[in-house]
Amino acid sequence: MARWQAGAPDRLKEAALTLFQTRGYDGTTVAEIAAAAGVTERTFFRHFADKREVLFADQNSFEGVFLAALPPSGTSPMRLVAAVLDGAATLFGEDRRAWSRARQSIIAANAALQERELLKLSLLAVSLTRALTERGIDPISAALAAETAVTVFRTAFAAWIADGEDRPFAEVQAEVLRRLQALL
Amino acid sequence: MARWQAGAPDRLKEAALTLFQTRGYDGTTVAEIAAAAGVTERTFFRHFADKREVLFADQNSFEGVFLAALPPSGTSPMRLVAAVLDGAATLFGEDRRAWSRARQSIIAANAALQERELLKLSLLAVSLTRALTERGIDPISAALAAETAVTVFRTAFAAWIADGEDRPFAEVQAEVLRRLQALL
Repeated sequence: MARWQAGAPDRLKEAALTLFQTRGYDGTTVAEIAAAAGVTERTFFRHFADKREVLFADQNSFEGVFLAALPPSGTSPMRLVAAVLDGAATLFGEDRRAWSRARQSIIAANAALQERELLKLSLLAVSLTRALTERGIDPISAALAAETAVTVFRTAFAAWIADGEDRPFAEVQAEVLRRLQALL
Repeated sequence: MARWQAGAPDRLKEAALTLFQTRGYDGTTVAEIAAAAGVTERTFFRHFADKREVLFADQNSFEGVFLAALPPSGTSPMRLVAAVLDGAATLFGEDRRAWSRARQSIIAANAALQERELLKLSLLAVSLTRALTERGIDPISAALAAETAVTVFRTAFAAWIADGEDRPFAEVQAEVLRRLQALL
Protein backbone atom coordinates (compact mmCIF):
# COMPACT_ATOMS: atom_id res chain seq x y z
CA MET A 1 0.00 0.00 0.00
CA ALA A 2 1.32 3.45 -0.86
CA ARG A 3 2.64 5.44 2.06
CA TRP A 4 0.35 8.31 1.17
CA GLN A 5 -2.68 8.38 -1.07
CA ALA A 6 -4.41 11.41 -2.45
CA GLY A 7 -7.95 11.62 -1.13
CA ALA A 8 -7.38 9.39 1.88
CA PRO A 9 -9.11 11.80 4.31
CA ASP A 10 -12.19 11.98 2.10
CA ARG A 11 -12.29 8.21 1.67
CA LEU A 12 -11.90 7.74 5.42
CA LYS A 13 -14.75 10.18 6.08
CA GLU A 14 -17.06 8.42 3.64
CA ALA A 15 -16.17 4.99 4.99
CA ALA A 16 -16.65 6.13 8.59
CA LEU A 17 -20.02 7.67 7.85
CA THR A 18 -21.28 4.50 6.21
CA LEU A 19 -20.06 2.33 9.08
CA PHE A 20 -21.45 4.69 11.76
CA GLN A 21 -24.84 4.52 10.05
CA THR A 22 -24.91 0.75 9.63
CA ARG A 23 -23.15 -0.47 12.81
CA GLY A 24 -23.61 2.54 15.05
CA TYR A 25 -20.93 4.98 16.17
CA ASP A 26 -19.97 3.01 19.28
CA GLY A 27 -19.92 -0.26 17.34
CA THR A 28 -17.39 0.94 14.77
CA THR A 29 -13.61 0.71 15.25
CA VAL A 30 -10.80 2.69 13.63
CA ALA A 31 -9.48 -0.58 12.18
CA GLU A 32 -12.80 -1.14 10.39
CA ILE A 33 -12.88 2.42 9.05
CA ALA A 34 -9.32 2.13 7.74
CA ALA A 35 -10.02 -1.26 6.12
CA ALA A 36 -13.21 0.03 4.46
CA ALA A 37 -11.27 3.01 3.07
CA GLY A 38 -8.45 0.75 1.88
CA VAL A 39 -5.75 2.33 4.04
CA THR A 40 -3.76 1.30 7.11
CA GLU A 41 -4.65 2.34 10.65
CA ARG A 42 -1.43 4.33 10.61
CA THR A 43 -2.79 6.35 7.69
CA PHE A 44 -6.01 6.91 9.60
CA PHE A 45 -4.10 8.33 12.56
CA ARG A 46 -2.04 10.55 10.26
CA HIS A 47 -5.27 12.39 9.43
CA PHE A 48 -7.48 12.02 12.52
CA ALA A 49 -6.71 11.86 16.24
CA ASP A 50 -9.56 9.37 16.82
CA LYS A 51 -12.81 8.22 15.23
CA ARG A 52 -14.76 11.12 16.71
CA GLU A 53 -12.57 13.60 14.86
CA VAL A 54 -13.70 12.16 11.53
CA LEU A 55 -17.00 13.92 12.25
CA PHE A 56 -15.39 17.11 13.59
CA ALA A 57 -12.22 17.45 11.51
CA ASP A 58 -13.60 20.36 9.51
CA GLN A 59 -13.86 22.47 12.65
CA ASN A 60 -10.64 24.42 12.15
CA SER A 61 -11.36 25.35 8.55
CA PHE A 62 -14.96 26.02 9.57
CA GLU A 63 -13.95 28.50 12.26
CA GLY A 64 -11.36 29.97 9.88
CA VAL A 65 -14.03 30.70 7.26
CA PHE A 66 -16.22 32.45 9.83
CA LEU A 67 -13.36 34.63 11.01
CA ALA A 68 -11.96 35.29 7.53
CA ALA A 69 -15.37 36.64 6.51
CA LEU A 70 -15.12 39.44 9.07
CA PRO A 71 -14.45 42.78 7.39
CA PRO A 72 -11.92 45.12 9.03
CA SER A 73 -12.99 47.49 11.78
CA GLY A 74 -15.16 50.52 11.13
CA THR A 75 -18.32 48.55 10.36
CA SER A 76 -21.40 48.20 12.57
CA PRO A 77 -21.76 44.98 14.61
CA MET A 78 -24.79 43.97 12.55
CA ARG A 79 -22.90 44.33 9.27
CA LEU A 80 -20.18 42.17 10.77
CA VAL A 81 -22.78 39.53 11.64
CA ALA A 82 -24.16 39.65 8.09
CA ALA A 83 -20.65 39.26 6.65
CA VAL A 84 -19.94 36.25 8.87
CA LEU A 85 -23.22 34.62 7.86
CA ASP A 86 -22.46 35.19 4.16
CA GLY A 87 -19.08 33.53 4.71
CA ALA A 88 -20.67 30.58 6.50
CA ALA A 89 -23.13 30.05 3.66
CA THR A 90 -20.27 29.48 1.20
CA LEU A 91 -19.31 26.38 3.19
CA PHE A 92 -22.60 24.60 2.70
CA GLY A 93 -23.14 23.99 -0.96
CA GLU A 94 -25.59 21.46 -2.36
CA ASP A 95 -22.79 18.86 -2.56
CA ARG A 96 -22.51 18.96 1.22
CA ARG A 97 -26.18 18.57 2.17
CA ALA A 98 -26.27 14.74 2.03
CA TRP A 99 -23.08 14.45 4.10
CA SER A 100 -24.45 16.97 6.61
CA ARG A 101 -27.72 15.07 6.94
CA ALA A 102 -25.97 11.74 7.46
CA ARG A 103 -23.52 13.28 9.94
CA GLN A 104 -26.41 14.85 11.86
CA SER A 105 -28.28 11.54 12.15
CA ILE A 106 -25.17 9.98 13.72
CA ILE A 107 -24.68 12.88 16.14
CA ALA A 108 -28.36 12.92 17.12
CA ALA A 109 -28.08 9.26 18.21
CA ASN A 110 -25.17 9.82 20.61
CA ALA A 111 -25.24 12.12 23.65
CA ALA A 112 -21.45 12.60 23.77
CA LEU A 113 -21.35 13.63 20.11
CA GLN A 114 -24.23 16.02 20.70
CA GLU A 115 -22.27 17.66 23.50
CA ARG A 116 -19.20 17.92 21.26
CA GLU A 117 -21.31 19.61 18.58
CA LEU A 118 -22.84 22.07 21.06
CA LEU A 119 -19.41 22.88 22.42
CA LYS A 120 -18.01 23.41 18.92
CA LEU A 121 -20.57 26.13 18.23
CA SER A 122 -20.11 27.72 21.67
CA LEU A 123 -16.36 27.90 21.09
CA LEU A 124 -17.03 29.46 17.69
CA ALA A 125 -19.07 32.19 19.42
CA VAL A 126 -16.20 32.75 21.86
CA SER A 127 -13.71 33.14 18.98
CA LEU A 128 -16.05 35.49 17.13
CA THR A 129 -16.60 37.58 20.26
CA ARG A 130 -12.85 37.92 20.67
CA ALA A 131 -12.40 38.88 17.01
CA LEU A 132 -15.12 41.53 17.26
CA THR A 133 -13.61 42.94 20.46
CA GLU A 134 -10.26 43.17 18.67
CA ARG A 135 -12.02 45.28 16.05
CA GLY A 136 -12.81 47.84 18.73
CA ILE A 137 -16.41 46.77 19.43
CA ASP A 138 -17.41 47.02 23.10
CA PRO A 139 -17.63 43.67 24.93
CA ILE A 140 -21.43 43.56 25.26
CA SER A 141 -22.12 44.40 21.61
CA ALA A 142 -19.38 41.98 20.53
CA ALA A 143 -20.88 39.14 22.58
CA LEU A 144 -24.42 39.85 21.37
CA ALA A 145 -23.37 40.08 17.72
CA ALA A 146 -21.24 36.92 17.88
CA GLU A 147 -23.87 34.87 19.73
CA THR A 148 -26.55 36.09 17.35
CA ALA A 149 -24.48 35.10 14.31
CA VAL A 150 -24.00 31.62 15.76
CA THR A 151 -27.69 31.34 16.69
CA VAL A 152 -28.77 32.24 13.16
CA PHE A 153 -26.20 29.90 11.64
CA ARG A 154 -27.13 27.01 13.94
CA THR A 155 -30.86 27.42 13.34
CA ALA A 156 -30.39 27.82 9.58
CA PHE A 157 -28.21 24.72 9.48
CA ALA A 158 -30.88 22.65 11.24
CA ALA A 159 -33.52 23.94 8.81
CA TRP A 160 -31.27 23.39 5.75
CA ILE A 161 -30.79 19.69 6.54
CA ALA A 162 -34.43 19.09 7.50
CA ASP A 163 -36.35 16.56 5.41
CA GLY A 164 -37.81 18.11 2.28
CA GLU A 165 -35.84 21.37 2.47
CA ASP A 166 -34.16 22.03 -0.87
CA ARG A 167 -33.48 25.78 -0.88
CA PRO A 168 -29.81 26.90 -0.84
CA PHE A 169 -28.21 27.54 2.55
CA ALA A 170 -27.95 31.32 2.01
CA GLU A 171 -31.69 31.56 1.31
CA VAL A 172 -32.65 29.53 4.39
CA GLN A 173 -30.27 31.56 6.52
CA ALA A 174 -31.61 34.90 5.28
CA GLU A 175 -35.12 33.81 6.23
CA VAL A 176 -33.96 32.75 9.72
CA LEU A 177 -32.30 36.15 10.24
CA ARG A 178 -35.49 37.95 9.17
CA ARG A 179 -37.49 35.80 11.58
CA LEU A 180 -35.14 36.64 14.43
CA GLN A 181 -35.48 40.34 13.66
CA ALA A 182 -39.27 39.99 13.61
CA LEU A 183 -39.22 38.03 16.88
CA LEU A 184 -37.29 40.78 18.68
CA MET B 1 -19.01 13.55 63.48
CA ALA B 2 -22.73 13.62 62.89
CA ARG B 3 -23.93 11.46 60.03
CA TRP B 4 -25.63 14.44 58.46
CA GLN B 5 -25.16 18.12 59.15
CA ALA B 6 -27.44 20.92 58.10
CA GLY B 7 -25.64 23.28 55.77
CA ALA B 8 -22.94 20.83 54.74
CA PRO B 9 -23.36 21.54 51.01
CA ASP B 10 -23.03 25.29 51.55
CA ARG B 11 -20.00 24.84 53.80
CA LEU B 12 -18.42 22.54 51.22
CA LYS B 13 -19.05 25.08 48.46
CA GLU B 14 -17.49 27.90 50.45
CA ALA B 15 -14.49 25.77 51.46
CA ALA B 16 -13.96 24.59 47.87
CA LEU B 17 -14.12 28.11 46.48
CA THR B 18 -11.53 29.36 48.96
CA LEU B 19 -9.20 26.45 48.22
CA PHE B 20 -9.63 26.73 44.44
CA GLN B 21 -8.71 30.42 44.69
CA THR B 22 -5.67 29.93 46.92
CA ARG B 23 -4.24 26.60 45.67
CA GLY B 24 -5.75 26.46 42.21
CA TYR B 25 -8.52 24.15 41.02
CA ASP B 26 -6.16 21.36 39.90
CA GLY B 27 -4.13 21.65 43.10
CA THR B 28 -7.10 21.06 45.41
CA THR B 29 -8.30 17.60 46.47
CA VAL B 30 -11.70 16.45 47.71
CA ALA B 31 -10.02 15.42 50.99
CA GLU B 32 -8.83 18.99 51.52
CA ILE B 33 -12.24 20.44 50.74
CA ALA B 34 -13.96 18.05 53.16
CA ALA B 35 -11.41 18.79 55.89
CA ALA B 36 -11.77 22.55 55.43
CA ALA B 37 -15.57 22.22 55.70
CA GLY B 38 -15.26 20.00 58.78
CA VAL B 39 -16.92 16.95 57.22
CA THR B 40 -15.78 13.55 56.02
CA GLU B 41 -15.03 12.73 52.39
CA ARG B 42 -18.04 10.45 52.52
CA THR B 43 -20.22 13.44 53.33
CA PHE B 44 -18.67 15.31 50.40
CA PHE B 45 -19.59 12.50 48.04
CA ARG B 46 -23.11 12.36 49.44
CA HIS B 47 -23.62 15.87 48.02
CA PHE B 48 -21.29 16.10 45.01
CA ALA B 49 -20.13 13.54 42.42
CA ASP B 50 -16.68 15.15 42.24
CA LYS B 51 -14.94 18.44 42.93
CA ARG B 52 -16.03 19.92 39.62
CA GLU B 53 -19.67 19.50 40.58
CA VAL B 54 -19.17 21.85 43.54
CA LEU B 55 -19.04 24.61 40.91
CA PHE B 56 -21.90 23.23 38.81
CA ALA B 57 -24.23 21.68 41.39
CA ASP B 58 -26.78 24.45 40.98
CA GLN B 59 -27.34 23.50 37.35
CA ASN B 60 -30.48 21.46 37.90
CA SER B 61 -32.23 24.07 40.01
CA PHE B 62 -30.96 26.72 37.60
CA GLU B 63 -32.50 24.99 34.59
CA GLY B 64 -35.65 24.32 36.62
CA VAL B 65 -36.08 28.03 37.38
CA PHE B 66 -35.73 28.93 33.69
CA LEU B 67 -38.32 26.36 32.67
CA ALA B 68 -40.68 27.10 35.57
CA ALA B 69 -40.78 30.74 34.47
CA LEU B 70 -42.33 29.78 31.13
CA PRO B 71 -45.99 30.74 30.97
CA PRO B 72 -48.42 28.25 29.40
CA SER B 73 -48.97 28.23 25.65
CA GLY B 74 -50.84 30.99 23.86
CA THR B 75 -48.15 33.63 24.33
CA SER B 76 -45.78 35.03 21.71
CA PRO B 77 -42.22 33.64 21.62
CA MET B 78 -40.85 37.03 22.66
CA ARG B 79 -43.09 37.17 25.72
CA LEU B 80 -41.90 33.70 26.62
CA VAL B 81 -38.30 34.92 26.35
CA ALA B 82 -39.07 37.89 28.59
CA ALA B 83 -40.71 35.61 31.17
CA VAL B 84 -37.70 33.29 31.19
CA LEU B 85 -35.34 36.23 31.66
CA ASP B 86 -37.43 37.56 34.54
CA GLY B 87 -37.26 34.14 36.14
CA ALA B 88 -33.49 33.96 35.68
CA ALA B 89 -33.03 37.35 37.32
CA THR B 90 -34.62 36.10 40.55
CA LEU B 91 -31.71 33.65 40.90
CA PHE B 92 -29.03 36.31 41.01
CA GLY B 93 -29.60 38.49 44.02
CA GLU B 94 -26.96 40.74 45.54
CA ASP B 95 -26.01 37.98 47.99
CA ARG B 96 -24.87 35.84 45.08
CA ARG B 97 -22.69 38.36 43.24
CA ALA B 98 -19.49 37.75 45.26
CA TRP B 99 -19.85 33.96 44.91
CA SER B 100 -20.49 34.33 41.17
CA ARG B 101 -17.42 36.54 40.72
CA ALA B 102 -15.20 34.13 42.64
CA ARG B 103 -16.60 31.13 40.75
CA GLN B 104 -16.03 32.89 37.43
CA SER B 105 -12.40 33.66 38.23
CA ILE B 106 -11.83 29.94 38.89
CA ILE B 107 -13.58 28.89 35.69
CA ALA B 108 -11.74 31.49 33.60
CA ALA B 109 -8.41 29.97 34.70
CA ASN B 110 -9.23 26.42 33.57
CA ALA B 111 -10.04 25.40 29.97
CA ALA B 112 -11.98 22.24 30.96
CA LEU B 113 -14.18 24.23 33.36
CA GLN B 114 -14.80 26.84 30.67
CA GLU B 115 -15.98 24.10 28.31
CA ARG B 116 -18.26 22.71 31.03
CA GLU B 117 -19.76 26.17 31.52
CA LEU B 118 -20.30 26.69 27.79
CA LEU B 119 -21.92 23.28 27.52
CA LYS B 120 -24.18 24.00 30.49
CA LEU B 121 -25.64 27.03 28.75
CA SER B 122 -25.94 25.23 25.40
CA LEU B 123 -27.87 22.43 27.10
CA LEU B 124 -30.09 25.02 28.75
CA ALA B 125 -30.93 26.39 25.29
CA VAL B 126 -31.72 22.86 24.09
CA SER B 127 -34.10 22.32 27.04
CA LEU B 128 -35.75 25.69 26.48
CA THR B 129 -36.17 24.99 22.76
CA ARG B 130 -37.87 21.71 23.59
CA ALA B 131 -40.16 23.36 26.13
CA LEU B 132 -41.16 26.06 23.64
CA THR B 133 -41.82 23.46 20.94
CA GLU B 134 -44.04 21.60 23.39
CA ARG B 135 -46.02 24.83 23.76
CA GLY B 136 -46.86 24.64 20.07
CA ILE B 137 -44.24 27.09 18.81
CA ASP B 138 -42.72 26.12 15.45
CA PRO B 139 -39.18 24.70 15.63
CA ILE B 140 -37.40 27.69 14.08
CA SER B 141 -39.10 30.30 16.29
CA ALA B 142 -38.60 28.06 19.33
CA ALA B 143 -34.87 27.69 18.63
CA LEU B 144 -34.43 31.42 17.97
CA ALA B 145 -36.34 32.44 21.10
CA ALA B 146 -34.52 29.95 23.32
CA GLU B 147 -31.06 30.79 21.98
CA THR B 148 -31.82 34.49 22.27
CA ALA B 149 -32.92 34.10 25.89
CA VAL B 150 -29.69 32.26 26.70
CA THR B 151 -27.59 34.84 24.81
CA VAL B 152 -29.16 37.71 26.74
CA PHE B 153 -28.80 35.85 30.04
CA ARG B 154 -25.18 34.88 29.36
CA THR B 155 -24.19 38.40 28.30
CA ALA B 156 -26.05 39.99 31.22
CA PHE B 157 -24.40 37.61 33.65
CA ALA B 158 -20.92 38.52 32.36
CA ALA B 159 -21.77 42.23 32.70
CA TRP B 160 -23.32 41.79 36.16
CA ILE B 161 -20.15 40.23 37.59
CA ALA B 162 -17.79 42.68 35.85
CA ASP B 163 -15.62 44.84 38.12
CA GLY B 164 -17.43 47.95 39.26
CA GLU B 165 -20.91 46.86 38.14
CA ASP B 166 -23.37 47.29 41.03
CA ARG B 167 -26.78 47.47 39.36
CA PRO B 168 -29.22 44.61 40.07
CA PHE B 169 -29.22 41.67 37.65
CA ALA B 170 -32.66 42.48 36.24
CA GLU B 171 -31.59 46.01 35.35
CA VAL B 172 -28.38 44.86 33.62
CA GLN B 173 -30.32 42.19 31.75
CA ALA B 174 -33.01 44.60 30.56
CA GLU B 175 -30.30 46.86 29.12
CA VAL B 176 -28.66 43.91 27.34
CA LEU B 177 -32.00 42.92 25.78
CA ARG B 178 -32.55 46.49 24.59
CA ARG B 179 -29.08 46.52 23.08
CA LEU B 180 -29.75 43.28 21.24
CA GLN B 181 -32.99 44.69 19.85
CA ALA B 182 -31.13 47.82 18.72
CA LEU B 183 -28.36 45.73 17.16
CA LEU B 184 -30.84 43.75 15.06
